[in-house]
Amino acid sequence: MKISSATIENHLETVYDAVVVGGGMGGLSAAIYLARYGLRCLIIEKGKGRSIWMQETRNYLGFDPTTPGRDILRHGTKQALHWGADHLRAFVENVTDEGDTFAIDVKIGKKNSKTYTLRSKYLIAASGVIDVLPELEDMQNVMWDQNAVLIAGSEGQINAAFVLNWFTPYISVLTDGKYPVSEAMKAKLADHGYPLYESPIKEFLGEDHKMSGIALEDGTVVEATTGLISMGSIYHNQYLKGIEALTWDGENLITNDMTQTTHERIFAIGDLKKGLNQGSIAVADGTKAATQIWRNIRRASVPRKWETNIPKEVEEQAAEAVATSA
Amino acid sequence: MKISSATIENHLETVYDAVVVGGGMGGLSAAIYLARYGLRCLIIEKGKGRSIWMQETRNYLGFDPTTPGRDILRHGTKQALHWGADHLRAFVENVTDEGDTFAIDVKIGKKNSKTYTLRSKYLIAASGVIDVLPELEDMQNVMWDQNAVLIAGSEGQINAAFVLNWFTPYISVLTDGKYPVSEAMKAKLADHGYPLYESPIKEFLGEDHKMSGIALEDGTVVEATTGLISMGSIYHNQYLKGIEALTWDGENLITNDMTQTTHERIFAIGDLKKGLNQGSIAVADGTKAATQIWRNIRRASVPRKWETNIPKEVEEQAAEAVATSA
Repeated sequence: MKISSATIENHLETVYDAVVVGGGMGGLSAAIYLARYGLRCLIIEKGKGRSIWMQETRNYLGFDPTTPGRDILRHGTKQALHWGADHLRAFVENVTDEGDTFAIDVKIGKKNSKTYTLRSKYLIAASGVIDVLPELEDMQNVMWDQNAVLIAGSEGQINAAFVLNWFTPYISVLTDGKYPVSEAMKAKLADHGYPLYESPIKEFLGEDHKMSGIALEDGTVVEATTGLISMGSIYHNQYLKGIEALTWDGENLITNDMTQTTHERIFAIGDLKKGLNQGSIAVADGTKAATQIWRNIRRASVPRKWETNIPKEVEEQAAEAVATSA
Repeated sequence: MKISSATIENHLETVYDAVVVGGGMGGLSAAIYLARYGLRCLIIEKGKGRSIWMQETRNYLGFDPTTPGRDILRHGTKQALHWGADHLRAFVENVTDEGDTFAIDVKIGKKNSKTYTLRSKYLIAASGVIDVLPELEDMQNVMWDQNAVLIAGSEGQINAAFVLNWFTPYISVLTDGKYPVSEAMKAKLADHGYPLYESPIKEFLGEDHKMSGIALEDGTVVEATTGLISMGSIYHNQYLKGIEALTWDGENLITNDMTQTTHERIFAIGDLKKGLNQGSIAVADGTKAATQIWRNIRRASVPRKWETNIPKEVEEQAAEAVATSA
């Protein structure tokens, strides 16, 4: 069910089997599986992730190319709620490992916000990246042989030009005046014929959502009908930084092939884990995390027997024993 | 485009970047990505796979629980064709590694069938399983606390009862009279209260697609409203058996985290590779295989330069050199 600031007090005693931080494609997939395995789970979603930003979902199997990412998320949220998952809009501030459970501190609301602590046995970190800029892998097909601008956030990110050139060789590189570019990089760009513009950006040109170019502060106009902003990502993973057993590679968590981190009760899926950042992979990660958590909980639980098949005399003896001890 | 027996002669000289064997969820996802990366690809589909059998797709993110698997496949085929993939309905009989390419022998048609040889640089084995019986992971939620029959194809497969009992403890085990059951297994079943029926199955009982039980040859009627057939899988992988560099674990191919097998130009996705058999995972596998093939081809290709940016005098010198040598 949907949980809000009005009803959260009713859930403070609940120990969830799993809390999923992040309601993007990966988190929703995990929640759908968890709920269908009969586990108590809660999705905590702060809003605004990569899939919402992606206006079109050309690659995800089964959808029309024009389906907005937010439609898939809205539908997935409905699916998860339908199967019995709980859903809360809140920001996860901190997670503390209490041994058998995690204490999850969440902040609800922007003004006059309140902080609450929720509890779960397992944690699925599916909170992805905040800044939601597209990856090169998302650029397929949209820019074949068009004039393209690459706005690179650092010299290292200029290297995206040498992947982008699979799609188009007509690449102009912009630094937005933010950093100096080495002679080696300048020579490499010149060798490829890709002009470099080091003046700050003044404005984007175009109309009807169609880009025609970019005007720079120095008066230059760079003609382009498409572009890529390569600025690196800002991760929403601060809430995990206090947990010692985790192993990081930069801002990504190291996981095994079932998306389990080096903390046995924490799973990391989608953009938070090492590997390709694609919606379809986040969805599969959710399947794996939920299935492994189910297996762990199932194997640790007492197997359910067909009790009514127990012979009558055994049941009668048991009933007698209970009656005698009372 | 769709290729048929009428048009296949036009494609015998083509060297595809990748041929995808199998048009299930994994194969279609791979083809969509390959086509969007601008690579020449062909899906070869023989029909009848696990996802077609699955009437409902409760777990795949973004679809209504009642969406038939064949609707997703039909839509995915349309997507792949839209982005430029080729599609052929045929049976892959054999694959031969020719060094830089594979020769892929396909049989078209059931009666008066004809055999042709197609060629590609990379191969994606996405041909999955033929017998299309559901896995335990697909059983979620459908059988909570119902009377269930487990029809097990061998003594080993009776062990499915001890996973199934997460969903219901009311399990009757049927051997269909096919094999003897050990005393140890009989004792384990008795301990759980799960009756064992060793008589052959006579008929399934029920009406309006709702099961009410199973009648056995010995006259017994086992009441049940749901069931699981655990018979193992028949794999469509014979066409790969002649390729020495592959590493098998039973009928599954060993792959790395990008689904590449131990043959660097063969990728295995979905049910053919080791791991969880779920549609969402096959879709992600397709993404990975296609992306890795794109990376390999891209890195091996000459980088595209912005040739018109070459200073005029260089172009003139080049033109002069060509003219002189002619």
